[in-house]
Amino acid sequence: MFFYTEALINEIVPDQPDPSAAKAMQEILGGHYGEMRTMMQFSFQSANFRGPATQYRDLIRGIFLEEISHVELVQTTINKLLDGSGRSDKGENEPLLANAPGDGQTYHYIIGAQSSLPVDSSGNPWNGSWVYDHGNLVSNLLDNLVLEATGTLQKSRIYEMSTNKTFRETLAFLMVRDNAHQNAYAKALETLGVNWGKVLPVPDYDLTQYPECRKYIERGWHNAQFNFRLDPTRIGEIFQGESPGRHGGTLKVEPPPAGFPVPQMPERVSEHSPGIPRELTGAARS
Amino acid sequence: MFFYTEALINEIVPDQPDPSAAKAMQEILGGHYGEMRTMMQFSFQSANFRGPATQYRDLIRGIFLEEISHVELVQTTINKLLDGSGRSDKGENEPLLANAPGDGQTYHYIIGAQSSLPVDSSGNPWNGSWVYDHGNLVSNLLDNLVLEATGTLQKSRIYEMSTNKTFRETLAFLMVRDNAHQNAYAKALETLGVNWGKVLPVPDYDLTQYPECRKYIERGWHNAQFNFRLDPTRIGEIFQGESPGRHGGTLKVEPPPAGFPVPQMPERVSEHSPGIPRELTGAARS
Amino acid sequence: MFFYTEALINEIVPDQPDPSAAKAMQEILGGHYGEMRTMMQFSFQSANFRGPATQYRDLIRGIFLEEISHVELVQTTINKLLDGSGRSDKGENEPLLANAPGDGQTYHYIIGAQSSLPVDSSGNPWNGSWVYDHGNLVSNLLDNLVLEATGTLQKSRIYEMSTNKTFRETLAFLMVRDNAHQNAYAKALETLGVNWGKVLPVPDYDLTQYPECRKYIERGWHNAQFNFRLDPTRIGEIFQGESPGRHGGTLKVEPPPAGFPVPQMPERVSEHSPGIPRELTGAARS
Amino acid sequence: MFFYTEALINEIVPDQPDPSAAKAMQEILGGHYGEMRTMMQFSFQSANFRGPATQYRDLIRGIFLEEISHVELVQTTINKLLDGSGRSDKGENEPLLANAPGDGQTYHYIIGAQSSLPVDSSGNPWNGSWVYDHGNLVSNLLDNLVLEATGTLQKSRIYEMSTNKTFRETLAFLMVRDNAHQNAYAKALETLGVNWGKVLPVPDYDLTQYPECRKYIERGWHNAQFNFRLDPTRIGEIFQGESPGRHGGTLKVEPPPAGFPVPQMPERVSEHSPGIPRELTGAARS
Amino acid sequence: MFFYTEALINEIVPDQPDPSAAKAMQEILGGHYGEMRTMMQFSFQSANFRGPATQYRDLIRGIFLEEISHVELVQTTINKLLDGSGRSDKGENEPLLANAPGDGQTYHYIIGAQSSLPVDSSGNPWNGSWVYDHGNLVSNLLDNLVLEATGTLQKSRIYEMSTNKTFRETLAFLMVRDNAHQNAYAKALETLGVNWGKVLPVPDYDLTQYPECRKYIERGWHNAQFNFRLDPTRIGEIFQGESPGRHGGTLKVEPPPAGFPVPQMPERVSEHSPGIPRELTGAARS
Amino acid sequence: MFFYTEALINEIVPDQPDPSAAKAMQEILGGHYGEMRTMMQFSFQSANFRGPATQYRDLIRGIFLEEISHVELVQTTINKLLDGSGRSDKGENEPLLANAPGDGQTYHYIIGAQSSLPVDSSGNPWNGSWVYDHGNLVSNLLDNLVLEATGTLQKSRIYEMSTNKTFRETLAFLMVRDNAHQNAYAKALETLGVNWGKVLPVPDYDLTQYPECRKYIERGWHNAQFNFRLDPTRIGEIFQGESPGRHGGTLKVEPPPAGFPVPQMPERVSEHSPGIPRELTGAARS
Repeated sequence: MFFYTEALINEIVPDQPDPSAAKAMQEILGGHYGEMRTMMQFSFQSANFRGPATQYRDLIRGIFLEEISHVELVQTTINKLLDGSGRSDKGENEPLLANAPGDGQTYHYIIGAQSSLPVDSSGNPWNGSWVYDHGNLVSNLLDNLVLEATGTLQKSRIYEMSTNKTFRETLAFLMVRDNAHQNAYAKALETLGVNWGKVLPVPDYDLTQYPECRKYIERGWHNAQFNFRLDPTRIGEIFQGESPGRHGGTLKVEPPPAGFPVPQMPERVSEHSPGIPRELTGAARS
Repeated sequence: MFFYTEALINEIVPDQPDPSAAKAMQEILGGHYGEMRTMMQFSFQSANFRGPATQYRDLIRGIFLEEISHVELVQTTINKLLDGSGRSDKGENEPLLANAPGDGQTYHYIIGAQSSLPVDSSGNPWNGSWVYDHGNLVSNLLDNLVLEATGTLQKSRIYEMSTNKTFRETLAFLMVRDNAHQNAYAKALETLGVNWGKVLPVPDYDLTQYPECRKYIERGWHNAQFNFRLDPTRIGEIFQGESPGRHGGTLKVEPPPAGFPVPQMPERVSEHSPGIPRELTGAARS
Repeated sequence: MFFYTEALINEIVPDQPDPSAAKAMQEILGGHYGEMRTMMQFSFQSANFRGPATQYRDLIRGIFLEEISHVELVQTTINKLLDGSGRSDKGENEPLLANAPGDGQTYHYIIGAQSSLPVDSSGNPWNGSWVYDHGNLVSNLLDNLVLEATGTLQKSRIYEMSTNKTFRETLAFLMVRDNAHQNAYAKALETLGVNWGKVLPVPDYDLTQYPECRKYIERGWHNAQFNFRLDPTRIGEIFQGESPGRHGGTLKVEPPPAGFPVPQMPERVSEHSPGIPRELTGAARS
Repeated sequence: MFFYTEALINEIVPDQPDPSAAKAMQEILGGHYGEMRTMMQFSFQSANFRGPATQYRDLIRGIFLEEISHVELVQTTINKLLDGSGRSDKGENEPLLANAPGDGQTYHYIIGAQSSLPVDSSGNPWNGSWVYDHGNLVSNLLDNLVLEATGTLQKSRIYEMSTNKTFRETLAFLMVRDNAHQNAYAKALETLGVNWGKVLPVPDYDLTQYPECRKYIERGWHNAQFNFRLDPTRIGEIFQGESPGRHGGTLKVEPPPAGFPVPQMPERVSEHSPGIPRELTGAARS
Repeated sequence: MFFYTEALINEIVPDQPDPSAAKAMQEILGGHYGEMRTMMQFSFQSANFRGPATQYRDLIRGIFLEEISHVELVQTTINKLLDGSGRSDKGENEPLLANAPGDGQTYHYIIGAQSSLPVDSSGNPWNGSWVYDHGNLVSNLLDNLVLEATGTLQKSRIYEMSTNKTFRETLAFLMVRDNAHQNAYAKALETLGVNWGKVLPVPDYDLTQYPECRKYIERGWHNAQFNFRLDPTRIGEIFQGESPGRHGGTLKVEPPPAGFPVPQMPERVSEHSPGIPRELTGAARS
Repeated sequence: MFFYTEALINEIVPDQPDPSAAKAMQEILGGHYGEMRTMMQFSFQSANFRGPATQYRDLIRGIFLEEISHVELVQTTINKLLDGSGRSDKGENEPLLANAPGDGQTYHYIIGAQSSLPVDSSGNPWNGSWVYDHGNLVSNLLDNLVLEATGTLQKSRIYEMSTNKTFRETLAFLMVRDNAHQNAYAKALETLGVNWGKVLPVPDYDLTQYPECRKYIERGWHNAQFNFRLDPTRIGEIFQGESPGRHGGTLKVEPPPAGFPVPQMPERVSEHSPGIPRELTGAARS
């Protein structure tokens, strides 16, 4: 069973709207290698796990739990990048969403009221066929390692598409966390006998070259596994000892961040959101 | 942020394998109106919520939280219905999965090792286009009401496909919970001025005619909202007072069930699951 | 603008339920080469037509109009093949839909109450990418010819899957009509200079070998175009003269059939269909 | 059976090409909540109807009939918005479609010759899984109400994307008709006992704030159901009496509009449309 | 069995990057009527062929073989159009891919490192349902004729979107080859009795109006079939005699072009491609 | 450029038709981890390769080349499993395809004339989104390793579904070849520094327990790379030395098998395949 506290796993740094960045960010949410897939893939792999070596199941489930919070963080980041966008700067007589067809993803302005969607950067809906539980632990660990490595690859590429601070801070946090999760799956394979040499991390980057990443690296979050379990877990039997990545360090299970406030989005009357009938607001609103 | 205790929201009642029932049950997990959609739809609607009337957001999010546990319950039910199936009864010389092409869903035996998948009863993968956040509260509440009503409709139909106890107990529990969630969305619309007359519940059934439902009705779970929040929530501002359904009763927010053990599935060596290399089992297994 | 009379374009011949036949028949409704595609393809091609040679547009639109009635005929045929199915013959204690997982398409019993759906014989949903308007008349006519020829190919193959009379009568009628529409597109290409020799019809069949087809052939319906226009049309400028098929005859535009009654399906209380609340039946029913 | 007169249900107001508006308008044609879905959903729900309360079936079918004309109207509107677009204004040496990759939807210039397609605003093909017949009347009516409400929501949002007159007139007409259809489904639920209070219409808008809507409101078209039946119908047993919307008025079944001419699109030789071979035009063209 | 020489079937003419052209070109690679479909459609039709008239199978297979090289040519063309793109010209402080969200297809910069993908111009993935083997030779030949004609239609339209030389040379070569393949399928239908009159080629174009096509026409490549078989083939029993197209000429089977060098793409360190760890380059690189 | 000899890469062992086995085998052809994906994934990765370390590109391309022959082998195997199936054994009066709705995949009897299709075991069409070129060599190698390992996992599972000899021989050959390709990608990662310990092969099987595999193992085909290049290749710089799998041996590039005859399938007049018009057979057939 799953419990919740209204708090984001990382901070939403304020900046201007940036609908092109929001469009690119959808890949991180609803793409083939996005957070919705990691969440659902690890959910299926842990629920379907067979046999007594439950330390591996607990590792996969532990990462699944964090991914639910990643989905929430990316949804919120996209919302922040969209909120207030779409308007033209050509003058007062322009319609309210004059820029919406040109900027970014039309869905953001038609389906919702400038908010996140379960689609990728090109508007393709998230697809269940991407989730894979091979029914075999080694295949699952390798697949998950590819998944986390690709998460970083994609984030480091879209990082270069905009200097928007809301955008880059979320990307930087997630790149560090992808690194930690890559270490988790790589370490699990080490316990089965693999020696990674100097091939990790994939891609072969230096996270400290991304300025926003540095503080997270200093906190050791690239080698940490946040523990969202309220009961005991065997995750620490795997996630311990030397980091499998070339940059070294020690793997450590630790409590999750304290949590950050969820920004409240304003009403958008012109887009009927939330659109509670005005006569009823006395009763309905706080 | 999301937290977890390894416990199922309801009991898995043991019975024989039933791969046809597992195939039908996939509709409840990965179908257009299945638990994955309710989970993701309520996730997006709560993350994207606008304006200060956060009691509505908290209601939607509260149901979202329970749906994550529903996904886990249905995954586990399908696994239990599949585990040990596929074998022919024609004799010892038959291959191990002689019945797999005929019984149920081929994916269950090829992709995984007799375990659940993010697909529907006909094998179509879950599709992100089904999730809808209209960006408008009244549309969302009505859509969610249709979603919960259809959940019950489908479950009451597939209930008639097998008398398997594992199958029927999970269906019965979920039908009662769908009723509670239907009441939640209907009640939210009541706060905006709708009077449902005698049209609810949809469908027009008497849950007590399903023997497995009776105990849940006696506990009042058709009028209860389980609270998975670890912090305060405004859900009780909506979910209170007289039930909007024809059968009456009082809506009440209450703590979740105590939780039930997650069954451990045995290894399946012939299907390479989990498939930890034998030479390594000393190190890798507990 | 489109007008309607409640009458089917052909008779529904009564017979026993046959859910496997219903499953196969879904290919004719919602498949890549089914009636929904012909309807929508000809709709787009006629709406998007360019230039003054509107006799070609009127031909395509004339067939589009008939296809709307074909969709209705196939929906009704599937409903008739399903109605009353799903029950086991193993005894009174069996659940109501004990055979539903094994017979035919699970969607028929879960999504609807034993009724037709916009999917194909394997359960894949109808897909808009199949509809093609090439924006070029010759390509469109050739594509449409392939479409009508494939309609017959598929129908003649599934005809061999069951001797059910409801099933075969609808198939036979549609095979004759596909032949007429194949003639229409072939004739249009003749007006542009093609001489088909003896290659038509495709496939190279003798429709009279299907007993149910004979009466339609005798009425000349394989060479007739039913006219559903309430205003003038240029269709007769193309659809006239010698039939392009090897079997000859004269093409003729004529009024549509007189129409056949739409069978009324009974309520299915156990499946909540239509499910009007019982307390309300005084007011709601005739 | 379905009949046709070549006339549009509303006027196409001339204006300049606007390919971005055409791209957005595709959501209204081929999107999850577009006219193709409303047409097909009401087609299936009426064909699959069970039981003697055929006044409800006639209501759903009556709206289905109008939706076929809506599809034709939106196809034609998109064609008008596209016709003549794609050209650069950078000079004579630019290629003919220099702007096509940047403006709007590439499909419009590659697949067809600047014409409409069964896809949504992001280019995703129409998908049969969106059509839903729940096999239960109350669920269907609620689902249809959400569908009509969302139609208006989306149209009012894309209305703000361009001031193009062709675009806005079609949107305004359809918003008024969506309102009428919303009233139809809401009224049907009233006959089953629901009292909507002041929650309708959804969204909570004042249609008269859209200048193009006013004339339609004055004609009472937001409370009218156009009758496309050539034979008797029971639709008036439901669609009568006070409008369920907050703005009141009386529901009335009435004849459809007189009809407007279908604009003829010119040939586009450079795009091979219709592309009848020049040597043959003497024979082939009027 | 299939063999390979590293050589392209046509030259890649160098020019500047053009990501919009690359986006449009994806339709030719992964679109409904693109090279991946022609390759796979002819693969299935030849593998599934029935009966002794293997000259038709050899014709279809012969074209299949060339299509594999077309896929390689279009992949390489897209790569060349992308390589070095995405950069803003606004100054040194701009991020590396500042233009990527606006120019072309976001996938090109996120999924890969500026390289080709199995998607169409709007980003929809290639779909197996487009491939069709009707199991009937005449239907297959007609379908293939439509496919080749549409290939030319689409290429001639996107040719007008950019004057980029890399783009136009590949398009021109493929248009001439589509013409040859159209002739092949048309000729096969001639052997079955069809006389095409003056309706071919479709579309009704004069290839010599495209300057890049002229040299290929002069070589007779519009009437040539390249033979990629290392063993005997019956293709020449069909592909011989007078060309079925209006422009005449003689069909001739001949050896393939000598082959052109495959351009080597440079490393992109910032996009981690190929991303071989630097410490390892001594060992790993030549 | 690609060349061809009409010869299969392995023998088709004759046995009775087995449509259920054909249905399962479709997963190996058109499934998420089937041969069509391996073929296209390695095609894109080799065409898109960057940088001078072309020994890795040559390795990926070398496996791509073999996969084209695997696609042909699986198409042919499915055809052989289908040919002559569908008939009932209930008597002469049964229709020709009386068993087709129950046995296997309906598409096999409706779309084609008992022949292979680009779909998976549940009928879902092959999907281009499954193909992935990460634009990063290490990710690609790991992804490809997972792909080859899963190929074996799936084949070893469906091997247990039928004892049909046609079915099992093809599966056994492909399992041995998947092992060789797994070794290839694993070895490439070894050159970058990974030491696999005893984790390979995945799954942890002993291929010699499958009787049909033994002869291939004896020939050393689990450690061989067939070379389909007609020109020089650097593949041997990687594919050499000790096999990375636990079972050892030496990797060796060698010539492909001599090739096996492609079985010719008989005509099926009742299914119109190939359906050459009878009047034309004198001219058209050899």
